[in-house]
Amino acid sequence: MRIIGLDPGLRHTGWGIIEASGNHLRHVANGLVRSEPDGALADRLRQLFDGVNAVLDDHAPGEAAVEETFVNKNPTSTLKLGQARGIALLAPALAGLRVAEYAPNLIKKSIVGTGHAQKRQVEMMVRTLLPGVAIAAADAADALAVAICHAHHRQSAARVAAAVAVAGAGG
Amino acid sequence: MRIIGLDPGLRHTGWGIIEASGNHLRHVANGLVRSEPDGALADRLRQLFDGVNAVLDDHAPGEAAVEETFVNKNPTSTLKLGQARGIALLAPALAGLRVAEYAPNLIKKSIVGTGHAQKRQVEMMVRTLLPGVAIAAADAADALAVAICHAHHRQSAARVAAAVAVAGAGG
Repeated sequence: MRIIGLDPGLRHTGWGIIEASGNHLRHVANGLVRSEPDGALADRLRQLFDGVNAVLDDHAPGEAAVEETFVNKNPTSTLKLGQARGIALLAPALAGLRVAEYAPNLIKKSIVGTGHAQKRQVEMMVRTLLPGVAIAAADAADALAVAICHAHHRQSAARVAAAVAVAGAGG
Repeated sequence: MRIIGLDPGLRHTGWGIIEASGNHLRHVANGLVRSEPDGALADRLRQLFDGVNAVLDDHAPGEAAVEETFVNKNPTSTLKLGQARGIALLAPALAGLRVAEYAPNLIKKSIVGTGHAQKRQVEMMVRTLLPGVAIAAADAADALAVAICHAHHRQSAARVAAAVAVAGAGG
């Protein structure tokens, strides 16, 4: 299963593609989609939309995972992030992908083992879990982290479903 | 010139279409685009996107105006609004429309004459400026108000540009 992870932001949205097969993870690609800082807001959102669509076209992932935006104390920043996040959720949904969402703490816990891990620790674990990865930027590392988190969770969910099916068949 | 006004919201996004020719305004249509409250966020955003696109297809406006979202004190609400607002800005931009943005106070001032007008006063003035209009919902009235605000402002902008051109030709 090929998974795209997205870390939304108006200035740039990080993306990372991995392949998950059982416990095995493989890095495919990662990078940033940028918007022109001086552009009109609607144009910037279109740039992000076009950029994420180009990544979806290039790499054809089957599932998407988006980091839940940290709700900032600054409401103007929160609004900006929300607008970018709307695009990051819309683009894969329009491409027919199921879009999962994960809170930052859950992503950290899933990758480092604690919800209070530093950004640097997350990036280090991403490098360990995806040997040989060249990380384009910090937000691309975060996007790979949410993709890895999704790989772990979809597998657990599949195991639970399988156990329930076996229990059902035995009972 | 046919103008679409949009009042973004995740549960429903209001829309209103008017035609402006000089000082004359004419109502074309208004309504709400809804998302299913129980749906996944990405699906809800897709419903809003599809709904706004359907309105754009049906009525083929040439310009768009979107109300600037009130930055709520509740950051979770602000994030939700931001996501819906991203869609309301993206859809007309993808259709090739210029997308103007107006602050709520400017819209009120442009329509009622004061930035501190009540919602009811705005709706009453919308009814006065667009005789015979049947308003689908409060958020559709707000969408018509932002379209009217844009009609006023684009005309002033055109007058200023014309005056500058005349002054330039005379000098």
